[in-house]
Amino acid sequence: MPAVKHMKWWGWGVEGVSFHWEDKPAFPAFVSRAVGIDITQPPESPKTIEQLHVPAPRISDEVRGRLTDAVGATNVAYDDLDRVVHTYGKSLRDLLRLRAADLPRVPDAIVYPGSEDDVRALVDLAGEADLVLIPFGGGSNISGSLHPLAEEERTVVSVDLGRMDQVLEVDEDSGLARVQAGVLGPDLETQLGRRGWTMGHFPDSFTHSTLGGWVATRSSGMQSDKYGDIARIARGMRVVQPSGTLVVRPVPSTSTGPSTREMVLGSEGRLGVITEVTVQVHRIPENRLMLAYLFPSFEAGLAAMQEISTSDAHPSVTRVSDQYETQMSLATRKASKGFSVSSTVGAQLFKHLERRGWDLDQACLSFIGYEGGRAHVAHEKGIVGAIIKAHGGVGLGKGPAVLYDQKKFDTPYIRDFLLDRGGAADVSETAAPWSKLFPLYTAVVENVRKVYADLGVTGWIMCHLSHSEHSGACLYFTFAFAHDDNPIAQYDRVKEALQGTFIEAGGTLSHHHAVGTEHSRWLEDDISTQGVLMVQGVIDTVDPTHQLNPGKITSV
Amino acid sequence: MPAVKHMKWWGWGVEGVSFHWEDKPAFPAFVSRAVGIDITQPPESPKTIEQLHVPAPRISDEVRGRLTDAVGATNVAYDDLDRVVHTYGKSLRDLLRLRAADLPRVPDAIVYPGSEDDVRALVDLAGEADLVLIPFGGGSNISGSLHPLAEEERTVVSVDLGRMDQVLEVDEDSGLARVQAGVLGPDLETQLGRRGWTMGHFPDSFTHSTLGGWVATRSSGMQSDKYGDIARIARGMRVVQPSGTLVVRPVPSTSTGPSTREMVLGSEGRLGVITEVTVQVHRIPENRLMLAYLFPSFEAGLAAMQEISTSDAHPSVTRVSDQYETQMSLATRKASKGFSVSSTVGAQLFKHLERRGWDLDQACLSFIGYEGGRAHVAHEKGIVGAIIKAHGGVGLGKGPAVLYDQKKFDTPYIRDFLLDRGGAADVSETAAPWSKLFPLYTAVVENVRKVYADLGVTGWIMCHLSHSEHSGACLYFTFAFAHDDNPIAQYDRVKEALQGTFIEAGGTLSHHHAVGTEHSRWLEDDISTQGVLMVQGVIDTVDPTHQLNPGKITSV
Repeated sequence: MPAVKHMKWWGWGVEGVSFHWEDKPAFPAFVSRAVGIDITQPPESPKTIEQLHVPAPRISDEVRGRLTDAVGATNVAYDDLDRVVHTYGKSLRDLLRLRAADLPRVPDAIVYPGSEDDVRALVDLAGEADLVLIPFGGGSNISGSLHPLAEEERTVVSVDLGRMDQVLEVDEDSGLARVQAGVLGPDLETQLGRRGWTMGHFPDSFTHSTLGGWVATRSSGMQSDKYGDIARIARGMRVVQPSGTLVVRPVPSTSTGPSTREMVLGSEGRLGVITEVTVQVHRIPENRLMLAYLFPSFEAGLAAMQEISTSDAHPSVTRVSDQYETQMSLATRKASKGFSVSSTVGAQLFKHLERRGWDLDQACLSFIGYEGGRAHVAHEKGIVGAIIKAHGGVGLGKGPAVLYDQKKFDTPYIRDFLLDRGGAADVSETAAPWSKLFPLYTAVVENVRKVYADLGVTGWIMCHLSHSEHSGACLYFTFAFAHDDNPIAQYDRVKEALQGTFIEAGGTLSHHHAVGTEHSRWLEDDISTQGVLMVQGVIDTVDPTHQLNPGKITSV
Repeated sequence: MPAVKHMKWWGWGVEGVSFHWEDKPAFPAFVSRAVGIDITQPPESPKTIEQLHVPAPRISDEVRGRLTDAVGATNVAYDDLDRVVHTYGKSLRDLLRLRAADLPRVPDAIVYPGSEDDVRALVDLAGEADLVLIPFGGGSNISGSLHPLAEEERTVVSVDLGRMDQVLEVDEDSGLARVQAGVLGPDLETQLGRRGWTMGHFPDSFTHSTLGGWVATRSSGMQSDKYGDIARIARGMRVVQPSGTLVVRPVPSTSTGPSTREMVLGSEGRLGVITEVTVQVHRIPENRLMLAYLFPSFEAGLAAMQEISTSDAHPSVTRVSDQYETQMSLATRKASKGFSVSSTVGAQLFKHLERRGWDLDQACLSFIGYEGGRAHVAHEKGIVGAIIKAHGGVGLGKGPAVLYDQKKFDTPYIRDFLLDRGGAADVSETAAPWSKLFPLYTAVVENVRKVYADLGVTGWIMCHLSHSEHSGACLYFTFAFAHDDNPIAQYDRVKEALQGTFIEAGGTLSHHHAVGTEHSRWLEDDISTQGVLMVQGVIDTVDPTHQLNPGKITSV
C-alpha cells in the first residue's frame, strides 16, 4: 500500500487527535447555553468500520487488471477502509451519513497514480471501459464534491493524488514553483520553506487539503488579502483530459480569449485531473506580525475592515468575529493562558471598556496581520491603528493572536466532539459587496434562528469576516444545534436558510468552498441560467460522456 | 443620426488632430536614421471616402424594417462613411487595407441600440433572420476583432454601443459603479470624477475605447499595477446572449465553479453583447505623483522593476523603456520644453553620467507612479528609490513624467503620419515570467531585425515594460519600417517574428490586446489544443449557429 496518509474515516483530522474541554473551564457552560448539550456526560461510543456493512466493489476482473496495468498492483486498493475514506468529504452531511452507515455508493477501487503518465493511462481507461473517475486530494471538501452518485451504475474509481506530492522546480527569478497537485499544505510549505519560500496559502483545511484540491475548489486562505486566493496564486496548470492534456502556461497575465485557467479553477474534477500547478511563491517575509483588536460591535468592526480595504495599507489578514464568535473564542480559552476576562490584564481592560460605555456582550474580537520589512509593518500598523481607533476599536496586542494562530487549524475537531454528543455543526460562507454585508449578516442570523425556533432546537449561529477585498468581503458562518433523530432533515432546513439568504441578500453561494452537490440547487440563482448553460457547455465539451466526477457543480 | 462620435475612417483619433514634427527639432533626423524616411518631404495626398468604392449593403427590405423596429429609424445607418468606420479596427493591417481601398466585406447596416431591450431585440432578430452581429465600442482594436469575414454571405450588422454611455449608479459604500458598456474612457472618468471617483483604467487607447471593449479584450491600463487590469476591475456584467441574458452578480469573489465572468472577459463579442458592467471604483487619491528615472541599461531597468514587484512597495505605474524607445522619446521632445539632452539640466546630468562611465546610447528612461496619502507616497518612494539606486538608476524628477503624461495618448497619431510617408508601424505586446523576460526581449529584437534585413528595409524596433506583476511583466514592442508596394506581406513577416518569438521564449500571444484574427493562428501554441477546444466549446454552447462575430479568437 502506498504511504499516503488519510484523515479518520469517521471525522476530521488524524487518529488520536481530538478536541478536549477539560482544560477549558468556561466551555461546558458555553455549550450548554449555545446548543443545550451537557458535554460533561459521556459521549456516544465510537463507531467501527465493521459496523458499516460496506458494499462489495462493483468491478470486473478485466478492469481490475487494467487498473493494475495503469498504476501498478501496489497502487490499487479495494479494502473497505480505503474505500470508505474515499467515499465522502467532511461536510456535516457526509459525517452524519457515515455515522448512520448510509453508504448507498462507495468507490469500487482506489488508485494512487505516481505520475502524469499514470493519470493519462487512467483517464484513457475511463473512456475505454466506461469508468467514473473522482479525483481525490486531502478529502477535506465540505460541499459534497467527492462522493459517487447513489444511482451510479458504472464502476467508480477514486483517483487519490497523494503520491504526487513534490515541488518539482522553483524559478527563483520569477517567484514561481512547479508543484505536483497531490501535495498537502504542510508538506508544500515545508518543501518551499527549505528553499526560503512560502506560497502563503493557509485555508482552515490547510493540514488536510492539497494544492490540486485548492485549485479545483477556488480556495482562499487566511492570508489571501496579501498573497491572493488560489485563483491568483495558480498561474500554470497541467490537466489530463479525455482528449488530451490541457496546458496553461505560467504567464503572469494574458489576453487570449476566455480564460481556460479560470475554467479549471473551481472545476471539481469535471474538466480533468489536475496533475501539476505552477504557483506564485514569495520570500519568507522579514516580519510576520498578527495583532488583536476589540470592537464595540460587529457593525463597527465591519466598517473598520471596509475602510482598511480602501486605505493605503494592505494587511495580510483582516478578520473580525461577531459577538457570538467572540464569546465562543473566550469560552475555549485555556484556564491559565492568554487574554481572557479572567486574566488580570483582561479584567482591567474589560472594566475600563465598561466605564467607557461598552456593552461587553457585544464586543467583537479582530485580528489583523502585517508582513514585510520593519518600516513597512510600522507604516501599515499606523494606518490601520488610526482606522480602528476611529471606529471605536482598541488594541489587545499580540497575545490573543498568537493563541489564535496556534489553534486555528484545530477548530474542525470540535465538530466531531459535538457529533459524539448529539450536536450537529458546520460552516457556510459567502461574499458580498460592503454595502450589503451587514444587512446580509443580520438576515442570516435572523433566518437561521427562525429555523431553530421552528425545529424547536437550541442552536447557535456565529460569524466572522475572513477576507477583505476592495468592493466587499467574505462572511464565514458557523452554526451548531442539538439535533434529533433526523439530523440531516434538520440540517437541510438550516442550510436552506443560510444559502437562500446569501442569494437574496446579494451574496454568493460560496466564497471559497465550491459548489459540489451541496450548493448546486442554488447555482442558477447565483450565476444565472445562462451561466449554468456556459459551465455545462465547457463540461460537456471536455467530457461529453461524463466520465469525470459527474453530478458535481451542475447536477448533469 | 445618433450623436455617437467616431474616429477618422482612415486612421487614429479625431478629425483635425494629427502629429506634427515642426516643433520637434530632433525628429526628422531620428526618423531618417530609424526607418530611412525623409519626413520633410510632402506626404501622400489624403484619401477621400469616395475613392473607396464601398459595396452596397446586402440586406433585405424585411431586415431593414426589423432593424428599424428594434432600435428606431434614427438609430440605423446605411451610409458609406458609417459602414467604413465600422468595417475595421485600427491595426496596421486595417489601416493599410483602408488606404488600399481593400474592402471585401463591409457591415451592411450599423445600429445604435439605446438600451438592453434594444440589444435583446437585435440578438433575437439575428437568430430569426440569420444575421451576423459584430459588437462595436470605440473601434480602437488592433487585433482584427471587428471586421466581417471576407467570405461572409449573411447580412452583417455592426452593433455600435455608443449611445449606451451612462454611469447608472454608484454604490459608494462598496466602491462599485454600474455602467453602460458603450461609454468611452474620458466620458466615464468625467462622470465618475464629478462624484469624486475614478476607475483608474487608462489604456493607451483610453480616449477612443469603451468599457465594453475593455472587457471584451481583457484590457490593461497604465495604472493597472495599482487598480488591476479590467479582469480585476469588472465585477458584475450583463451580457445579452441568444438564449437569454447572462448575469454576473457583482460579488467581490466567488467559488461557484468555472468562472463565467472570466469567460466573458476576452470574449470579443462571441459570447453575446455586453450591455452593462459593474466596476470597482476608487476615491480620487490625495496625491498622484509620477517620477522619472534613468537606468544605465534595459537589463538593469528590468531587474529593478522585478525587485520592486516583490518589495513592500506597490507603485501605481512601473514602466521602463529600452534604449531605443528612450531615444525615440528624446527625439520627440519639443524644442524648448522639459528634460532633454539640449536642456541645461539634462546636459549637465548627461555629462555627469558619462563621467561615471555610462554609455548614454544605452540609457533607459523609466516612470514610476505613486498614489495615496503624503506619508504613504513618501514611504513607497523611499523603498523604490533605494531599489533603483541599487540597480544603478538615477532620478530625473517630475519633469519628463509630466510631459509623458500629457502626450501619452497621442502616440498612435504618429503611425498615420508615417503611413502618409511610406512608413508602416504597429505594436505587439506579451507577458512572460521575470526569468524569461530579458532573453525574450533580446530574441525578439534580433528576430525582427533579421526580418528587416531579409526584406531589405530600414526598420526600427523598440520596447518598454508596461506592467509588473509578482511573477513577471508585460513587454510592449513598437516596430516601424519603410515599406514597399506590398506592405501587408512585409508586415506579416515582422508580425510572425514577434508573435512566434513570444511563444518560443515563454511569453503569451498578448498581454492585453486580445486575439481577434491577428493572433488566432498562434492561439493553440499558447493555450494548447485542449484550451482551444474549451474556448470553442463555450462559444458553440452560447452561440451554436455563430451569429456573433464569427471567426474571431478561434477561426471557427
